[in-house]
Amino acid sequence: MSLFITFEGPEGSGKSTQIERLATRLTAAGVNHTLTREPGGTPLGAQVRSVLLDHDLEIHPLSEFLLYSASRAQLVRDVIRPALQAGEVVICDRYADSSAAYQGAGRGLDPRFVGEVTWEATGGLRPHITVLLDLDPELGLQRAAARGQPDRLERADLSFHRRVRQGFLNIAAAEPERFLVLDGERAAHELEHFIWDAVAATLTALGQQIGVR
Amino acid sequence: MSLFITFEGPEGSGKSTQIERLATRLTAAGVNHTLTREPGGTPLGAQVRSVLLDHDLEIHPLSEFLLYSASRAQLVRDVIRPALQAGEVVICDRYADSSAAYQGAGRGLDPRFVGEVTWEATGGLRPHITVLLDLDPELGLQRAAARGQPDRLERADLSFHRRVRQGFLNIAAAEPERFLVLDGERAAHELEHFIWDAVAATLTALGQQIGVR
Repeated sequence: MSLFITFEGPEGSGKSTQIERLATRLTAAGVNHTLTREPGGTPLGAQVRSVLLDHDLEIHPLSEFLLYSASRAQLVRDVIRPALQAGEVVICDRYADSSAAYQGAGRGLDPRFVGEVTWEATGGLRPHITVLLDLDPELGLQRAAARGQPDRLERADLSFHRRVRQGFLNIAAAEPERFLVLDGERAAHELEHFIWDAVAATLTALGQQIGVR
Repeated sequence: MSLFITFEGPEGSGKSTQIERLATRLTAAGVNHTLTREPGGTPLGAQVRSVLLDHDLEIHPLSEFLLYSASRAQLVRDVIRPALQAGEVVICDRYADSSAAYQGAGRGLDPRFVGEVTWEATGGLRPHITVLLDLDPELGLQRAAARGQPDRLERADLSFHRRVRQGFLNIAAAEPERFLVLDGERAAHELEHFIWDAVAATLTALGQQIGVR
């Protein structure tokens, strides 16, 4: 009954809100689940996260990608795979597609290299469902800025964020069976319903009893 | 006149001593040089180093390799290449061969993958001279233990260190023109002379005026 769900999209697209709401619905439906995030999710990941979010540190795009991948390799082995093997639903805030979009499409790293390292880091583990909350970069940056100090990625220029958005959309177009692409400008309660419909349908197809909410 | 020299070998093999002595000789000979090390050598590298040397942290071999590679990518771009471009001799305490030996031969990561990531991280930059201070692992561990608390790699078992030693020797055998393999049990002043002879000969061949010492 295990199911691996990832959320992707820019800062300010509402990922955290939607992950929280999906988790609440899973709990109400009696479905065991684990929430995690990238970078982070393990003691190593937490340290790598603080390095990546250190505003004063000069980090080359290739080093940045390798740091994300190091955190990812540990997270897959210590958290995601064990939870899936225990039959849980795993929800991850960002995963491999973020590297393809941010470091590949955004920073211009060789997509073949990004793909190969990602394959090793994840051991080939791919999400069953990826929710992409698509948003105009200008709006996303405004929303993120309203929440406080922008991080390394948020401070990059607008053309970078446009490449990232297109990167996400290209990945989604190449794998329509995995992706649920939603307009991040929609109201949170609408997004919540779309996401729950997709997740509940998949769980039902997998034979999971969904409790009445 | 730029020359890139790396030192490899186990902890306790005398790398630090020999690097210091080579630097002293280069200074006496009037040769500009830069000393650096892995992991470390940059602000990012220093942070990655403290993560890698944190005894309490569980780090998967693949994550370990990706962290070393992240530090390496930054070091090559920010320190090694600029110094070489300025015509300096660069001496690096550990470099890519350490990943091939420790994470490849030692931890059993796929050597083809290790090679490919290393190629990207270094941008294909290889040392002109690599000094390998070869040493029986038991002796190296004794020497390292005598200096204080063992780090993550030192604490691994003896069979691991035997694979690492063989890994280094295999790399050296495959590239005899790059490697100067020396017996780490020799006296420090003997090793110093062998190393200086090789470096001075190379500098002379490159047309560098070597000052009288």
